[in-house]
Amino acid sequence: MDDHIRFENGVLLLLDQRKLPLIEESFVCRTVQEVIFALQTMVVRGAPAIGVCAAYGCCLALEEAQRAGANWMFELESLLDLLAQARPTAVNLTWAVQTMRAKGAGVTEPDKLATLWLDQAQAMHQNDIAMNKIMGRLGSELLQDGDTVMTHCNAGALATAGYGTALGVIRGAVDMGKNISVIANETRPFLQGARLTAYELQQDGIAVTVACDNACALLMQRGMVDKVVVGADRIVANGDVANKIGTSGVAILAKHYGIPFYVAAPSSTFDLTIGHGSLIPIEERTPLEVTHVGATQITPLDVPVFNFAFDVTDHALIDALITERGVLYPPYSHSIAEMIGQEL
Amino acid sequence: MDDHIRFENGVLLLLDQRKLPLIEESFVCRTVQEVIFALQTMVVRGAPAIGVCAAYGCCLALEEAQRAGANWMFELESLLDLLAQARPTAVNLTWAVQTMRAKGAGVTEPDKLATLWLDQAQAMHQNDIAMNKIMGRLGSELLQDGDTVMTHCNAGALATAGYGTALGVIRGAVDMGKNISVIANETRPFLQGARLTAYELQQDGIAVTVACDNACALLMQRGMVDKVVVGADRIVANGDVANKIGTSGVAILAKHYGIPFYVAAPSSTFDLTIGHGSLIPIEERTPLEVTHVGATQITPLDVPVFNFAFDVTDHALIDALITERGVLYPPYSHSIAEMIGQEL
Repeated sequence: MDDHIRFENGVLLLLDQRKLPLIEESFVCRTVQEVIFALQTMVVRGAPAIGVCAAYGCCLALEEAQRAGANWMFELESLLDLLAQARPTAVNLTWAVQTMRAKGAGVTEPDKLATLWLDQAQAMHQNDIAMNKIMGRLGSELLQDGDTVMTHCNAGALATAGYGTALGVIRGAVDMGKNISVIANETRPFLQGARLTAYELQQDGIAVTVACDNACALLMQRGMVDKVVVGADRIVANGDVANKIGTSGVAILAKHYGIPFYVAAPSSTFDLTIGHGSLIPIEERTPLEVTHVGATQITPLDVPVFNFAFDVTDHALIDALITERGVLYPPYSHSIAEMIGQEL
Repeated sequence: MDDHIRFENGVLLLLDQRKLPLIEESFVCRTVQEVIFALQTMVVRGAPAIGVCAAYGCCLALEEAQRAGANWMFELESLLDLLAQARPTAVNLTWAVQTMRAKGAGVTEPDKLATLWLDQAQAMHQNDIAMNKIMGRLGSELLQDGDTVMTHCNAGALATAGYGTALGVIRGAVDMGKNISVIANETRPFLQGARLTAYELQQDGIAVTVACDNACALLMQRGMVDKVVVGADRIVANGDVANKIGTSGVAILAKHYGIPFYVAAPSSTFDLTIGHGSLIPIEERTPLEVTHVGATQITPLDVPVFNFAFDVTDHALIDALITERGVLYPPYSHSIAEMIGQEL
């Protein structure tokens, strides 16, 4: 699963996550527009995976921009702007494009920039896997042998360059010899839990059971959930976390039942330019994701639907933030600032 | 919608709720086994509707039992036992069969019993609609002009003989001239909200928007939900409520966000033989409801799933119980005993 994003011979090859779990097929991106399409239609999704794809997208943008001749730098800027705006909520997308821009600052030779950027994108790709493994090792300390861990959406290998954030923590615990079983919330409307989390855990031989999002409270009430671990699309200065729609509900239920709730995310997911979760832009997606499942229409014609793709979990509901630089505890405004400050 | 259950010429005709909202088709029951099949596969569902269908099912049972000749009473008892056990959670099913049995006690002539039972079943059918209208009028006092009301599953005309319990309260408020809009939680896995609640409210011209169950916390956080009204499959002596899976989660979220949470159900839904919600039997249904939506398989092969059909909402999370005999408030152990005592 660590090769679901591949960049080969100037082409970005993505395992098409819209078709999993029953069909394993590659989606080929030769242009920035194709990368943007892949991000927007969720051929690939998950904040860290979006970041890595955006980095490779910059390489494709450079290739395309050169066709504009002398104007290539102007053309490149405009393509990078488009790419950075493909999806609004995950901060890793703008972070990746900014990182690539910073790396290329002042380089005026396209060939030199191409080499520099390919190296950088590959480094970000490899680095993401490495960070996830560190995060997994650190976070695994929070899980006990025999735990049943609930997770929401897919914060696994498929949501990252590999290994995963929330599922990385679970893999980390399993790698340490702990016996862990997982409850994957199916995660309507795009069903990342039922389709992707179940798929990759099954492939790894980790026990997984899928539950409708509606079953969450009952499973917790019955004592069937020991811990909750989820990923994040953006974490802001006070510790509020934007993640897949439904996450904040799971966090409130976990608090109600006294179940620890953890968020696993790399430092690239943190956005200290925003002080409070209510300021995070929340993407609204096509009604078709809600009105249809596969070929089946489930709502009457002309009945409107809501399709907010993310929600914000209040920092007061989160017991720890697991990052590759350490496990952070409340008060988060302090521990996050300290962690991000380390890099300065 | 008040004719989705019809008993004509000795045949029970049901609007097939498995096929809504896009296909309107009748399912015909000529035998008790067909009624049991219809209940178990959810051709018809909803506690009060199950009760009415069970009453008509008794009439079909009598017809069938007579083929056993002299043994007809013995045969009848065994068919009624089967019918009463078709589904475990909604108490209206056993209540309806018990009521029919009591009505027919001591009647030894099949023809006389047939007339008596048909009258009784039709009375229960009409009475359910009448009770829902009273409940709607009483409950409507709890809704204000301009309210957006969230509901879970379908506690509407299709879940009853007509008019509905939770949707009856909404219809009652609309009938009083209040402007009410509804958020229908889609209610996985069987999608009663997306398919049935949206369908019947659209037909009535009441504004309805469908949301994935996952959106509940975000909609509440954003102040988009003024009240929650749901139905019930069984309410026990302390006020704990069994209702469609996911209800207890909605109630916990409503409490978290300070949103009033109401349950609407007729007195036939109350079961005072049970003191605490944890003792209510919770039906587990086929994994296929979770693994498939229409023809689309959403989980990998061989990954297990949970499919509990109901959960129990703690009475402490409920602001009022709306019945045809009045609106009950905490402490419920007292107000329920008083309400049920009225009939003695």
